[in-house]
Amino acid sequence: MLAIGLMSGTSLDGIDAALVKINGYGTETAVQLMEMVTLPIDEELKERIKTACDPVESNVPLICQLNTELGYQFLKACQILCQKAGIEEKSIDFVASHGQTIWHSPDSDPAKNSTLQIGEPSIIAYGLQTKVVADFRVMDMAAGGQGAPLVPYTDYLLYQSDSKNRLLQNIGGIGNVTVLPKSGSLNELYAFDTGPGNMVIDELMVQLFGQPYDAFGETARAGAIIPTLQKELRTHFYLSQQPPKSTGRELFGKHFVQQLLTKYPEAAPEDLVRTLTDFTAFSIADSYQRFIFPQLGTNDLEVILSGGGAHNHLLIELIQGYLPESVAVGTQDDIGGSNDAKEAVAFAILGNETLHSRVNNAPAATGAAQGVILGKIIPNPWEAKM
Amino acid sequence: MLAIGLMSGTSLDGIDAALVKINGYGTETAVQLMEMVTLPIDEELKERIKTACDPVESNVPLICQLNTELGYQFLKACQILCQKAGIEEKSIDFVASHGQTIWHSPDSDPAKNSTLQIGEPSIIAYGLQTKVVADFRVMDMAAGGQGAPLVPYTDYLLYQSDSKNRLLQNIGGIGNVTVLPKSGSLNELYAFDTGPGNMVIDELMVQLFGQPYDAFGETARAGAIIPTLQKELRTHFYLSQQPPKSTGRELFGKHFVQQLLTKYPEAAPEDLVRTLTDFTAFSIADSYQRFIFPQLGTNDLEVILSGGGAHNHLLIELIQGYLPESVAVGTQDDIGGSNDAKEAVAFAILGNETLHSRVNNAPAATGAAQGVILGKIIPNPWEAKM
Repeated sequence: MLAIGLMSGTSLDGIDAALVKINGYGTETAVQLMEMVTLPIDEELKERIKTACDPVESNVPLICQLNTELGYQFLKACQILCQKAGIEEKSIDFVASHGQTIWHSPDSDPAKNSTLQIGEPSIIAYGLQTKVVADFRVMDMAAGGQGAPLVPYTDYLLYQSDSKNRLLQNIGGIGNVTVLPKSGSLNELYAFDTGPGNMVIDELMVQLFGQPYDAFGETARAGAIIPTLQKELRTHFYLSQQPPKSTGRELFGKHFVQQLLTKYPEAAPEDLVRTLTDFTAFSIADSYQRFIFPQLGTNDLEVILSGGGAHNHLLIELIQGYLPESVAVGTQDDIGGSNDAKEAVAFAILGNETLHSRVNNAPAATGAAQGVILGKIIPNPWEAKM
Repeated sequence: MLAIGLMSGTSLDGIDAALVKINGYGTETAVQLMEMVTLPIDEELKERIKTACDPVESNVPLICQLNTELGYQFLKACQILCQKAGIEEKSIDFVASHGQTIWHSPDSDPAKNSTLQIGEPSIIAYGLQTKVVADFRVMDMAAGGQGAPLVPYTDYLLYQSDSKNRLLQNIGGIGNVTVLPKSGSLNELYAFDTGPGNMVIDELMVQLFGQPYDAFGETARAGAIIPTLQKELRTHFYLSQQPPKSTGRELFGKHFVQQLLTKYPEAAPEDLVRTLTDFTAFSIADSYQRFIFPQLGTNDLEVILSGGGAHNHLLIELIQGYLPESVAVGTQDDIGGSNDAKEAVAFAILGNETLHSRVNNAPAATGAAQGVILGKIIPNPWEAKM
């Protein structure tokens, strides 16, 4: 089967579309990345998405308009991908779309939790003449889970090892880790959001330098740690919260950065970026020290980084610095996976499981009461019978 | 098959849940109403839903919270229905849920149209241990349609006659009519929103009398027409707009009523209700005069009223008064259907068509470029394979 996985992360660094050949399902899944594109989100649209995420500034017409607009952006990403790969759009068997998260608010009481991913999948289905699987997070939440993280299930299918404990650390807008104990079963994996990924760094870069991100960490490298801020950040309540846990723009978005800038008005911009890059690295390593090493130790342990943050050299150095020397730190590319396509491929795999009526959440990671089938299926509207 | 259809209209007068036995599909559909309940929406929740519909006051956390909350309300309606009918929840084969519309903004350019129905269907699927079909309007819009009206398709399946021209007039929050020419095919039906249904009357009753609606039209009956207002209302641009057309709270919601009250501060409350009841009746009859009678004439013609407005005796009298004497006006109950369950039953039928991969929009009614399969399918999460 030919499938497209679509992912647009909270960091808003673009719409990733991955074309994969996928066969089988479950642990028999064979997936091969054929082609990938990232469709940038232009600044004007990005600003409106951020407004739609804002608890005060957001409103229903904006959210609805963006649902349509992003639907067409996702469709466009699929079309560009097909063109780049030289295949007919009609040869796609299905698309699996994560959508753009504009709100994610897990709660231990399922009646109070909520999440919203927009980018209308019906538009993709109609435009590409294919079936679509979308809206993966809500069912996990209905089952009492946090609706995140979802990639651990595919990490398990693809990266489970009999000789190594593996930590799959994604650094998108938010940082999240999947822990795959060697020879472990699906119920033995666990996963959680470690804290901010690129979200805080990116927002600082926008506000202080008018740039979308800190390329390779060069801006942070030019700055110095602000000791009082470093100390303060390390007391953030999220660090000590017990997994399973997940977070997002609600905790580490614009409001968080605004508070920083208000509290440290005279700090040098580079120093702020440096200190927050340090906090991001620290939050990752600190999560391991608190919630992973006590169980697994630090031997036979690989950390595999993915996501945009895997391009931030300083961030990687800092993470390494905070970890024991015995821990190997590499990127997804080092082990034959594609770093940039990882999440998009993961959603193609999740969609494939949905279409096979299979459990595709990892309750050990999300906290759900049970395994469920994630996602809503949008039938191919062009295959309608009269 | 046993199915539940769920409808919660823009008038917010309650969640209708209809239990039906349904067999076959298409024109072979046999549907039998077994039981029905209406779960009232309490005032506090109603106010928050109205806020979520407001282009200014709405915000993303409120919308998301209501999506969850209404999901549980819809689940509760299903549970009460099963209990009332004395059947096991697990015996339900599927639920079809319309959701609560909080925004509906059709546009001739599909890239600019949008609609949003909330009340998370995953919560129903998980709670009732069944599959759910939901979110019917978006696919029609992706195909260039107005996403409304959707009931004409089921009107066609159920009420098509070889001896009568039939006008199926629903009076919910909004008024809408399906025109079924005698011996006509699916492509010959047409349908459109006639204008306000109970929406304006209800809002006036809330603001002026602290009551949710005008029972049997008694309040209006006690009032007199305000001639200047009557005249002004009849110039409303929506009346002359060519079908296909649809409308909602955007045109006839709180803002519309606020403007009225600001412009006529000294009018007697009963007179306002009377004049707006008159306008509602006029808008229905006027639609027929403009867009239906020129084609069909007024002989062999039945008007069949349904929805909450079919309980407003004055409204029915006024409609009759505005129509030629040859036109028969009755209610759904008169022809063996259930007035109050009509829309809920319609969505059960639409969901059944979705599950049979069948076209279930009526492009002649919605303006869509083609027939498509409406709705998203949420698999039964309890049937997940490991």
